[in-house]
Amino acid sequence: MKKKIGPRPIIFPMPALLVGTYGEDGTPNAMTAAWTAICCHDPLCAGVAIRQTRLTFDNLMRTKAFTLNVPRTSHAAEVDYLGIVSGKKEPKKLAVAGMESARADKIDAPIIVDCPVNLECALVSQTKLGTHTWFVGEIVETHVDEDALADGDVIDVPGLDPLVYITSASQYYSLGKPVAKAYNAGKKFKKNG
Amino acid sequence: MKKKIGPRPIIFPMPALLVGTYGEDGTPNAMTAAWTAICCHDPLCAGVAIRQTRLTFDNLMRTKAFTLNVPRTSHAAEVDYLGIVSGKKEPKKLAVAGMESARADKIDAPIIVDCPVNLECALVSQTKLGTHTWFVGEIVETHVDEDALADGDVIDVPGLDPLVYITSASQYYSLGKPVAKAYNAGKKFKKNG
Repeated sequence: MKKKIGPRPIIFPMPALLVGTYGEDGTPNAMTAAWTAICCHDPLCAGVAIRQTRLTFDNLMRTKAFTLNVPRTSHAAEVDYLGIVSGKKEPKKLAVAGMESARADKIDAPIIVDCPVNLECALVSQTKLGTHTWFVGEIVETHVDEDALADGDVIDVPGLDPLVYITSASQYYSLGKPVAKAYNAGKKFKKNG
Repeated sequence: MKKKIGPRPIIFPMPALLVGTYGEDGTPNAMTAAWTAICCHDPLCAGVAIRQTRLTFDNLMRTKAFTLNVPRTSHAAEVDYLGIVSGKKEPKKLAVAGMESARADKIDAPIIVDCPVNLECALVSQTKLGTHTWFVGEIVETHVDEDALADGDVIDVPGLDPLVYITSASQYYSLGKPVAKAYNAGKKFKKNG
Protein backbone atom coordinates (compact mmCIF):
# COMPACT_ATOMS: atom_id res chain seq x y z
CA MET A 1 0.00 0.00 0.00
CA LYS A 2 1.19 3.47 -0.94
CA LYS A 3 0.64 6.67 1.00
CA LYS A 4 0.65 10.10 -0.62
CA ILE A 5 2.71 12.55 1.42
CA GLY A 6 2.74 15.60 -0.86
CA PRO A 7 5.72 17.15 -2.66
CA ARG A 8 8.95 16.07 -0.94
CA PRO A 9 12.62 16.39 -2.02
CA ILE A 10 13.47 12.77 -1.35
CA ILE A 11 15.93 10.94 -3.52
CA PHE A 12 17.99 8.18 -1.86
CA PRO A 13 20.97 8.26 -1.62
CA MET A 14 22.53 11.67 -2.17
CA PRO A 15 26.21 12.60 -2.18
CA ALA A 16 27.51 15.24 0.24
CA LEU A 17 30.06 17.14 -1.83
CA LEU A 18 32.04 20.25 -0.99
CA VAL A 19 31.67 23.06 -3.54
CA GLY A 20 34.88 25.08 -3.64
CA THR A 21 35.02 28.72 -4.78
CA TYR A 22 37.18 31.77 -4.13
CA GLY A 23 35.85 34.84 -2.35
CA GLU A 24 36.35 38.35 -3.69
CA ASP A 25 39.57 38.74 -1.65
CA GLY A 26 40.84 35.30 -2.65
CA THR A 27 39.74 33.49 0.51
CA PRO A 28 38.96 29.85 -0.31
CA ASN A 29 35.41 28.85 0.55
CA ALA A 30 33.51 25.58 0.57
CA MET A 31 29.86 24.74 1.10
CA THR A 32 28.27 21.33 1.34
CA ALA A 33 25.88 20.35 -1.44
CA ALA A 34 23.77 17.23 -1.75
CA TRP A 35 21.82 18.61 -4.72
CA THR A 36 24.41 17.87 -7.37
CA ALA A 37 24.86 15.45 -10.27
CA ILE A 38 26.81 14.69 -13.42
CA CYS A 39 24.59 16.06 -16.19
CA CYS A 40 26.20 15.63 -19.62
CA HIS A 41 28.54 13.12 -21.26
CA ASP A 42 29.89 15.32 -24.09
CA PRO A 43 30.89 17.91 -23.09
CA LEU A 44 31.43 16.26 -19.72
CA CYS A 45 29.52 18.39 -17.22
CA ALA A 46 28.49 18.45 -13.59
CA GLY A 47 25.71 20.53 -12.08
CA VAL A 48 24.94 21.86 -8.64
CA ALA A 49 21.97 23.74 -7.17
CA ILE A 50 23.00 26.82 -5.19
CA ARG A 51 20.64 29.03 -3.20
CA GLN A 52 20.96 32.65 -4.32
CA THR A 53 21.57 33.89 -0.77
CA ARG A 54 24.76 31.81 -0.45
CA LEU A 55 28.30 33.22 -0.64
CA THR A 56 29.03 30.43 -3.12
CA PHE A 57 26.41 31.96 -5.44
CA ASP A 58 28.19 35.33 -5.45
CA ASN A 59 31.60 33.69 -5.84
CA LEU A 60 30.46 31.50 -8.70
CA MET A 61 28.83 34.38 -10.57
CA ARG A 62 32.10 36.31 -10.35
CA THR A 63 34.74 33.61 -10.95
CA LYS A 64 32.73 31.35 -13.31
CA ALA A 65 34.46 28.39 -11.71
CA PHE A 66 33.89 25.81 -8.96
CA THR A 67 35.23 22.50 -7.73
CA LEU A 68 33.27 19.48 -6.53
CA ASN A 69 35.06 17.54 -3.82
CA VAL A 70 34.09 14.08 -2.55
CA PRO A 71 34.70 13.69 1.20
CA ARG A 72 35.44 10.55 3.21
CA THR A 73 33.26 9.47 6.15
CA SER A 74 36.08 10.56 8.50
CA HIS A 75 35.24 14.18 7.60
CA ALA A 76 31.51 13.96 8.37
CA ALA A 77 31.61 16.63 11.09
CA GLU A 78 33.64 19.03 8.93
CA VAL A 79 31.31 18.48 5.99
CA ASP A 80 28.30 19.10 8.21
CA TYR A 81 29.82 22.32 9.56
CA LEU A 82 30.52 23.60 6.05
CA GLY A 83 26.84 23.04 5.27
CA ILE A 84 25.33 24.75 8.31
CA VAL A 85 27.54 27.86 8.46
CA SER A 86 27.66 30.38 5.61
CA GLY A 87 30.89 31.93 4.41
CA LYS A 88 29.06 35.23 4.79
CA LYS A 89 29.04 34.73 8.57
CA GLU A 90 32.36 32.94 8.91
CA PRO A 91 34.64 33.87 5.97
CA LYS A 92 37.39 31.55 7.24
CA LYS A 93 35.10 28.54 7.67
CA LEU A 94 37.43 26.20 5.79
CA ALA A 95 40.24 27.06 8.18
CA VAL A 96 37.89 26.74 11.18
CA ALA A 97 37.06 23.22 9.98
CA GLY A 98 40.77 22.53 9.69
CA MET A 99 40.60 21.71 5.99
CA GLU A 100 43.30 22.51 3.51
CA SER A 101 42.81 23.90 0.02
CA ALA A 102 45.03 24.38 -3.01
CA ARG A 103 44.61 26.34 -6.23
CA ALA A 104 43.00 24.27 -8.99
CA ASP A 105 45.04 23.57 -12.08
CA LYS A 106 42.84 24.93 -14.86
CA ILE A 107 40.22 27.14 -13.20
CA ASP A 108 39.96 29.93 -10.64
CA ALA A 109 38.72 27.87 -7.69
CA PRO A 110 40.22 25.93 -4.77
CA ILE A 111 40.32 22.15 -4.53
CA ILE A 112 39.80 20.77 -1.04
CA VAL A 113 42.97 18.75 -0.50
CA ASP A 114 41.50 16.59 2.31
CA CYS A 115 38.93 15.18 -0.13
CA PRO A 116 40.20 12.19 -2.13
CA VAL A 117 38.43 13.19 -5.37
CA ASN A 118 38.29 16.74 -6.78
CA LEU A 119 36.59 17.84 -9.99
CA GLU A 120 37.52 21.16 -11.59
CA CYS A 121 34.46 22.72 -13.25
CA ALA A 122 34.41 25.70 -15.63
CA LEU A 123 30.96 27.34 -15.65
CA VAL A 124 29.07 26.83 -18.92
CA SER A 125 25.46 27.66 -18.01
CA GLN A 126 23.17 28.67 -15.20
CA THR A 127 19.41 28.34 -14.91
CA LYS A 128 17.46 30.23 -12.26
CA LEU A 129 14.74 27.86 -11.09
CA GLY A 130 13.39 29.73 -8.06
CA THR A 131 15.19 29.96 -4.72
CA HIS A 132 18.02 27.99 -6.34
CA THR A 133 20.05 28.34 -9.52
CA TRP A 134 21.31 25.24 -11.32
CA PHE A 135 24.92 25.86 -12.26
CA VAL A 136 26.52 23.61 -14.87
CA GLY A 137 30.28 23.38 -15.26
CA GLU A 138 32.41 21.50 -17.76
CA ILE A 139 34.69 19.09 -15.91
CA VAL A 140 38.15 20.09 -17.11
CA GLU A 141 40.34 18.15 -14.67
CA THR A 142 40.04 15.48 -11.96
CA HIS A 143 42.41 14.93 -9.05
CA VAL A 144 42.45 11.68 -7.07
CA ASP A 145 44.49 10.76 -4.00
CA GLU A 146 47.07 8.22 -5.11
CA ASP A 147 46.14 5.92 -2.23
CA ALA A 148 42.55 5.84 -3.57
CA LEU A 149 43.75 4.47 -6.90
CA ALA A 150 44.13 0.75 -7.47
CA ASP A 151 45.83 -0.64 -10.59
CA GLY A 152 45.99 1.95 -13.35
CA ASP A 153 43.45 4.70 -12.79
CA VAL A 154 40.77 2.47 -11.30
CA ILE A 155 39.35 4.00 -8.14
CA ASP A 156 39.28 1.86 -5.03
CA VAL A 157 35.87 3.03 -3.83
CA PRO A 158 35.60 1.07 -0.56
CA GLY A 159 39.12 2.31 0.24
CA LEU A 160 37.97 5.83 -0.56
CA ASP A 161 35.12 5.39 1.97
CA PRO A 162 32.86 8.12 0.52
CA LEU A 163 30.33 9.92 2.69
CA VAL A 164 26.70 9.19 1.83
CA TYR A 165 23.89 11.61 2.67
CA ILE A 166 20.37 10.46 3.43
CA THR A 167 17.87 13.28 3.26
CA SER A 168 14.60 13.30 5.23
CA ALA A 169 16.39 11.35 8.00
CA SER A 170 19.20 13.99 7.85
CA GLN A 171 21.81 11.35 8.45
CA TYR A 172 25.26 10.66 7.02
CA TYR A 173 26.01 7.03 6.22
CA SER A 174 28.90 4.98 4.97
CA LEU A 175 28.74 2.81 1.90
CA GLY A 176 27.52 -0.74 2.51
CA LYS A 177 28.29 -3.94 0.65
CA PRO A 178 28.44 -4.63 -3.11
CA VAL A 179 25.02 -5.84 -4.27
CA ALA A 180 25.44 -6.41 -8.02
CA LYS A 181 27.66 -5.53 -10.95
CA ALA A 182 26.27 -2.77 -13.16
CA TYR A 183 25.95 -3.36 -16.91
CA ASN A 184 25.93 -7.03 -16.09
CA ALA A 185 23.33 -8.08 -13.48
CA GLY A 186 20.50 -7.06 -15.82
CA LYS A 187 21.63 -9.21 -18.73
CA LYS A 188 19.57 -12.14 -17.46
CA PHE A 189 16.42 -10.36 -18.62
CA LYS A 190 17.72 -9.89 -22.17
CA LYS A 191 16.08 -12.27 -24.60
CA ASN A 192 18.89 -12.27 -27.12
CA GLY A 193 21.87 -12.30 -24.70
CA MET B 1 49.79 12.87 -3.03
CA LYS B 2 47.27 13.65 -5.76
CA LYS B 3 47.23 12.31 -9.29
CA LYS B 4 45.59 14.14 -12.21
CA ILE B 5 43.51 11.75 -14.29
CA GLY B 6 41.79 14.15 -16.71
CA PRO B 7 38.07 14.97 -16.92
CA ARG B 8 36.06 12.16 -15.32
CA PRO B 9 32.34 11.94 -14.34
CA ILE B 10 33.01 10.70 -10.82
CA ILE B 11 30.80 11.73 -7.97
CA PHE B 12 30.37 9.26 -5.11
CA PRO B 13 27.77 8.03 -4.36
CA MET B 14 25.03 8.32 -6.99
CA PRO B 15 21.43 7.14 -6.78
CA ALA B 16 20.07 4.68 -9.36
CA LEU B 17 16.56 5.92 -9.98
CA LEU B 18 13.96 4.76 -12.48
CA VAL B 19 12.60 7.52 -14.71
CA GLY B 20 9.01 6.70 -15.66
CA THR B 21 7.33 8.04 -18.80
CA TYR B 22 4.55 6.98 -21.15
CA GLY B 23 5.21 6.04 -24.76
CA GLU B 24 3.16 7.43 -27.63
CA ASP B 25 0.74 4.47 -27.46
CA GLY B 26 0.49 4.67 -23.67
CA THR B 27 3.02 1.92 -22.92
CA PRO B 28 4.72 2.63 -19.58
CA ASN B 29 8.50 2.93 -19.85
CA ALA B 30 11.29 3.28 -17.33
CA MET B 31 14.99 3.93 -17.74
CA THR B 32 17.65 3.94 -15.05
CA ALA B 33 19.31 7.27 -14.28
CA ALA B 34 22.18 8.00 -11.92
CA TRP B 35 22.58 11.56 -13.20
CA THR B 36 19.74 13.10 -11.24
CA ALA B 37 19.31 15.44 -8.27
CA ILE B 38 16.92 17.66 -6.38
CA CYS B 39 17.62 21.13 -7.78
CA CYS B 40 15.33 23.76 -6.23
CA HIS B 41 13.60 24.28 -2.88
CA ASP B 42 10.83 26.66 -3.99
CA PRO B 43 9.35 25.62 -6.31
CA LEU B 44 10.40 22.14 -5.26
CA CYS B 45 12.13 20.63 -8.31
CA ALA B 46 14.07 17.58 -9.37
CA GLY B 47 16.28 17.30 -12.43
CA VAL B 48 17.53 14.45 -14.57
CA ALA B 49 19.98 14.26 -17.48
CA ILE B 50 18.60 12.33 -20.45
CA ARG B 51 20.55 11.47 -23.60
CA GLN B 52 18.70 12.74 -26.67
CA THR B 53 18.76 9.32 -28.33
CA ARG B 54 16.71 7.74 -25.53
CA LEU B 55 13.02 6.86 -25.78
CA THR B 56 12.58 8.67 -22.47
CA PHE B 57 13.73 11.87 -24.21
CA ASP B 58 10.98 11.57 -26.85
CA ASN B 59 8.39 10.64 -24.24
CA LEU B 60 9.31 13.51 -21.96
CA MET B 61 9.25 16.07 -24.77
CA ARG B 62 5.73 14.92 -25.66
CA THR B 63 4.12 14.35 -22.25
CA LYS B 64 6.00 17.05 -20.27
CA ALA B 65 5.91 14.70 -17.29
CA PHE B 66 8.09 12.08 -15.58
CA THR B 67 8.39 10.18 -12.35
CA LEU B 68 11.52 9.45 -10.32
CA ASN B 69 11.36 6.14 -8.50
CA VAL B 70 13.77 4.96 -5.78
CA PRO B 71 14.45 1.20 -5.98
CA ARG B 72 15.45 -1.22 -3.23
CA THR B 73 18.62 -3.32 -3.43
CA SER B 74 16.42 -6.38 -4.08
CA HIS B 75 15.69 -4.93 -7.53
CA ALA B 76 19.32 -4.39 -8.58
CA ALA B 77 19.11 -6.74 -11.58
CA GLU B 78 15.84 -5.20 -12.81
CA VAL B 79 17.26 -1.69 -12.41
CA ASP B 80 20.39 -2.69 -14.29
CA TYR B 81 18.34 -4.20 -17.13
CA LEU B 82 16.23 -1.03 -17.43
CA GLY B 83 19.49 0.89 -17.85
CA ILE B 84 21.15 -1.28 -20.48
CA VAL B 85 18.16 -1.90 -22.76
CA SER B 86 16.37 0.96 -24.52
CA GLY B 87 12.60 1.13 -24.79
CA LYS B 88 13.22 1.68 -28.49
CA LYS B 89 14.51 -1.91 -28.78
CA GLU B 90 12.24 -3.49 -26.19
CA PRO B 91 9.04 -1.43 -25.82
CA LYS B 92 7.75 -3.76 -23.10
CA LYS B 93 10.95 -3.65 -21.04
CA LEU B 94 9.11 -2.90 -17.80
CA ALA B 95 6.98 -6.01 -18.24
CA VAL B 96 10.08 -8.05 -19.22
CA ALA B 97 11.67 -6.95 -15.94
CA GLY B 98 8.48 -8.01 -14.15
CA MET B 99 7.86 -4.56 -12.72
CA GLU B 100 4.45 -3.08 -12.20
CA SER B 101 3.40 0.49 -12.96
CA ALA B 102 0.36 2.62 -12.18
CA ARG B 103 -0.86 5.94 -13.50
CA ALA B 104 0.47 8.88 -11.49
CA ASP B 105 -2.00 11.03 -9.64
CA LYS B 106 -1.32 14.49 -11.01
CA ILE B 107 0.75 14.04 -14.16
CA ASP B 108 0.78 11.97 -17.35
CA ALA B 109 3.46 9.44 -16.36
CA PRO B 110 3.62 6.02 -14.68
CA ILE B 111 4.89 5.43 -11.16
CA ILE B 112 6.84 2.20 -10.68
CA VAL B 113 4.85 0.45 -7.98
CA ASP B 114 7.71 -1.88 -6.93
CA CYS B 115 9.78 1.15 -5.89
CA PRO B 116 9.07 2.33 -2.32
CA VAL B 117 9.36 6.05 -3.15
CA ASN B 118 7.89 7.74 -6.23
CA LEU B 119 8.09 11.42 -7.14
CA GLU B 120 5.66 12.90 -9.67
CA CYS B 121 7.38 15.63 -11.69
CA ALA B 122 5.73 18.14 -14.04
CA LEU B 123 8.24 19.48 -16.57
CA VAL B 124 9.15 23.13 -16.01
CA SER B 125 12.36 23.58 -18.00
CA GLN B 126 14.90 21.81 -20.17
CA THR B 127 18.46 22.79 -21.01
CA LYS B 128 20.32 21.13 -23.88
CA LEU B 129 23.91 20.76 -22.67
CA GLY B 130 25.37 18.54 -25.43
CA THR B 131 24.64 14.82 -25.76
CA HIS B 132 22.32 15.21 -22.78
CA THR B 133 19.45 17.51 -21.89
CA TRP B 134 18.86 18.51 -18.26
CA PHE B 135 15.13 18.22 -17.60
CA VAL B 136 13.71 19.92 -14.52
CA GLY B 137 10.31 18.99 -13.13
CA GLU B 138 8.32 20.43 -10.27
CA ILE B 139 7.64 17.71 -7.71
CA VAL B 140 3.86 17.74 -7.41
CA GLU B 141 3.27 14.55 -5.42
CA THR B 142 5.22 11.88 -3.54
CA HIS B 143 4.15 8.30 -2.89
CA VAL B 144 5.79 6.14 -0.23
CA ASP B 145 5.19 2.50 0.63
CA GLU B 146 3.42 2.43 3.96
CA ASP B 147 5.88 -0.15 5.30
CA ALA B 148 8.72 2.31 4.59
CA LEU B 149 7.13 4.89 6.87
CA ALA B 150 7.89 4.99 10.55
CA ASP B 151 5.96 7.22 12.98
CA GLY B 152 4.13 9.97 11.14
CA ASP B 153 5.61 10.57 7.71
CA VAL B 154 9.23 9.87 8.71
CA ILE B 155 10.88 7.51 6.26
CA ASP B 156 12.57 4.42 7.64
CA VAL B 157 15.57 4.58 5.31
CA PRO B 158 17.43 1.42 6.44
CA GLY B 159 14.10 -0.41 6.14
CA LEU B 160 13.69 1.04 2.67
CA ASP B 161 17.13 -0.39 1.75
CA PRO B 162 17.82 1.97 -1.19
CA LEU B 163 20.09 0.95 -4.04
CA VAL B 164 23.34 2.94 -4.23
CA TYR B 165 25.26 3.32 -7.49
CA ILE B 166 29.03 3.70 -7.59
CA THR B 167 30.25 4.94 -10.93
CA SER B 168 33.72 4.21 -12.29
CA ALA B 169 33.60 0.85 -10.48
CA SER B 170 30.16 0.27 -12.11
CA GLN B 171 28.89 -1.41 -8.98
CA TYR B 172 25.64 -1.31 -7.05
CA TYR B 173 25.97 -1.15 -3.28
CA SER B 174 23.71 -1.14 -0.27
CA LEU B 175 23.70 1.61 2.31
CA GLY B 176 26.16 1.13 5.17
CA LYS B 177 26.03 2.33 8.74
CA PRO B 178 25.05 5.72 10.19
CA VAL B 179 28.16 7.87 10.56
CA ALA B 180 26.88 11.18 11.92
CA LYS B 181 23.74 13.25 12.33
CA ALA B 182 23.40 16.03 9.75
CA TYR B 183 22.79 19.61 10.96
CA ASN B 184 24.29 18.50 14.23
CA ALA B 185 27.73 16.86 13.94
CA GLY B 186 29.24 20.09 12.64
CA LYS B 187 28.11 22.25 15.55
CA LYS B 188 31.30 21.51 17.44
CA PHE B 189 33.16 23.83 15.06
CA LYS B 190 30.81 26.74 15.69
CA LYS B 191 32.36 29.37 17.91
CA ASN B 192 29.10 30.78 19.20
CA GLY B 193 27.15 27.56 19.68
